[in-house]
Amino acid sequence: MNELRKDPLLDRWVIIAKNRNMRPREFRHEPENVVGDEKTCFFCPGNEHMTPPEISRIEEDGRWIIRCFPNKFPALSVEDMSEEDDFYVKKAAYGRHEIIVELPYHNKDMSYLDVDHISNVWDMYCSRLKEIRKDPQIKYISIFKNWGHRAGASLQHSHSQLIAMPIVPSQIQEEVDALIEYRERKGSCAFCDIWRKEMESERGIYEDEHTVVFAPYASRFPYEMRIMPKRHIDSLAGFKREEKISLAKAFKTALTSLNQILDYPAHNFYLHSSPNEGHLHFYIAIFPRITRWAGFELANGVIINVVSPESAAEYYRTGVP
Amino acid sequence: MNELRKDPLLDRWVIIAKNRNMRPREFRHEPENVVGDEKTCFFCPGNEHMTPPEISRIEEDGRWIIRCFPNKFPALSVEDMSEEDDFYVKKAAYGRHEIIVELPYHNKDMSYLDVDHISNVWDMYCSRLKEIRKDPQIKYISIFKNWGHRAGASLQHSHSQLIAMPIVPSQIQEEVDALIEYRERKGSCAFCDIWRKEMESERGIYEDEHTVVFAPYASRFPYEMRIMPKRHIDSLAGFKREEKISLAKAFKTALTSLNQILDYPAHNFYLHSSPNEGHLHFYIAIFPRITRWAGFELANGVIINVVSPESAAEYYRTGVP
Repeated sequence: MNELRKDPLLDRWVIIAKNRNMRPREFRHEPENVVGDEKTCFFCPGNEHMTPPEISRIEEDGRWIIRCFPNKFPALSVEDMSEEDDFYVKKAAYGRHEIIVELPYHNKDMSYLDVDHISNVWDMYCSRLKEIRKDPQIKYISIFKNWGHRAGASLQHSHSQLIAMPIVPSQIQEEVDALIEYRERKGSCAFCDIWRKEMESERGIYEDEHTVVFAPYASRFPYEMRIMPKRHIDSLAGFKREEKISLAKAFKTALTSLNQILDYPAHNFYLHSSPNEGHLHFYIAIFPRITRWAGFELANGVIINVVSPESAAEYYRTGVP
Repeated sequence: MNELRKDPLLDRWVIIAKNRNMRPREFRHEPENVVGDEKTCFFCPGNEHMTPPEISRIEEDGRWIIRCFPNKFPALSVEDMSEEDDFYVKKAAYGRHEIIVELPYHNKDMSYLDVDHISNVWDMYCSRLKEIRKDPQIKYISIFKNWGHRAGASLQHSHSQLIAMPIVPSQIQEEVDALIEYRERKGSCAFCDIWRKEMESERGIYEDEHTVVFAPYASRFPYEMRIMPKRHIDSLAGFKREEKISLAKAFKTALTSLNQILDYPAHNFYLHSSPNEGHLHFYIAIFPRITRWAGFELANGVIINVVSPESAAEYYRTGVP
């Protein structure tokens, strides 16, 4: 039986189409095209002159292993201003748009990295967050990754992006408002309650001392996962050293499972962080891009998901037979 | 200069990335694969036994030219019920999911049809709307089309879908609320004001006595168009005969331009109709699927559009040189 599930916080509905419940092997896909090689890749070692001037790097044995620089074609930039309109609401596209190359290898994804290296990626994200938050015009900072063409990546070499905005996206604000309301009503953080609930359910996937991984109740995407610290932490900046390592370990495990089950699918992940004002509970959402939103999703904002999160979690726990 | 534009009604922001302003020819794409042929196509004349039992048809010269039947794998169905959950909100996936085959030709899209045939498609939509609205459990009826694999279609033969839901999608409800608020403040329908504003701007594309076509101010997709009746009509059910014909003519013109400029791209369209209670101003949104939403869009609900609607409208008005 299909189900119409409401997101626990957002006014967003997902139709869990159990009558289609597609198995991993049904999502056959072409391998992601290898575009270019090390010689012409903007992000490979030796080609640092091909990117805008570097903002920051993390080195190991005298060579960079992680690098951050501005996006050459920024969606938002600190120079941008625009005039008023008499009817519509418009803002200057003020902000920042940066690239974080997480690894110096042309053809590897982050599951190839060891836990310490991934934890260094968190450190790089963190240092950019802390720096950019000093700008009072910035209201929200989004960190995300597109891997593979179907996930929106135009370049092969693994990289994350950071976009700092002069607005709080309404999807984030709605969640903040719902969390405040939940806390007033129940006296606790909704996400602190949610992860416990999820880990008791068939949707739990992985757990260690500090971190849980689960397939969320109202998953928007087949095989979507959330990687969440148990402690109430509102952004990467609040993580202790051992929590960061635990998050890296859970992330590597999750991404490795995703690759194993769906044969290195195009995927996105994003950091779910608080606006500057706090409140949200941090997590990383990660999901493969193996289906497409069609007219129905785009017309209504109601999403059809052809794999139940219970079934997805089972594949993640047990592997594909 | 890029711009951050707010949707006139929804709390939804779009970054118009004028620094990327991609020309039509830059969106190269593989032709849509031809899947199957007339003999094995569920939707072709002669194979009517391969679909669930027909609900309705429109004939010409003794043969069907438009056919409606239930979806074999419905997202929502009138038999569906589901149990309560103690923590999350869940609803029975009650509703209807129907297919409307708009034409008896395996490899044609709707731009191939003459204006009378398209107007007959509106009539079919209309009769299903009127019939299904009698069910008091149905709160919203969405009619939409996926054409081409990249637009979410799994079958080649042109068809629309109708999904009748037991909820009003929040995106629609938010728009209804904004329209009520606008009317209280300004004494008019926001969309009646919007189409005039759009047609005076660089975003206007096409106009006749009853219908306008424009590239909306805060377009979410490159080359998005809206086809709107000038008169305040809340759904297809309120159209007069000559308005339906005018809508069909505008639709055919818009789809033909889309195909000419972008070489028959995968595309979606949807009918923007009122919930049963009324209020909204009807339009058809149509857009090609030539870019992908990536981590940023999916994390935040803020959308980057790499073609300004002003530039899109100019291509539609003048064609590709």
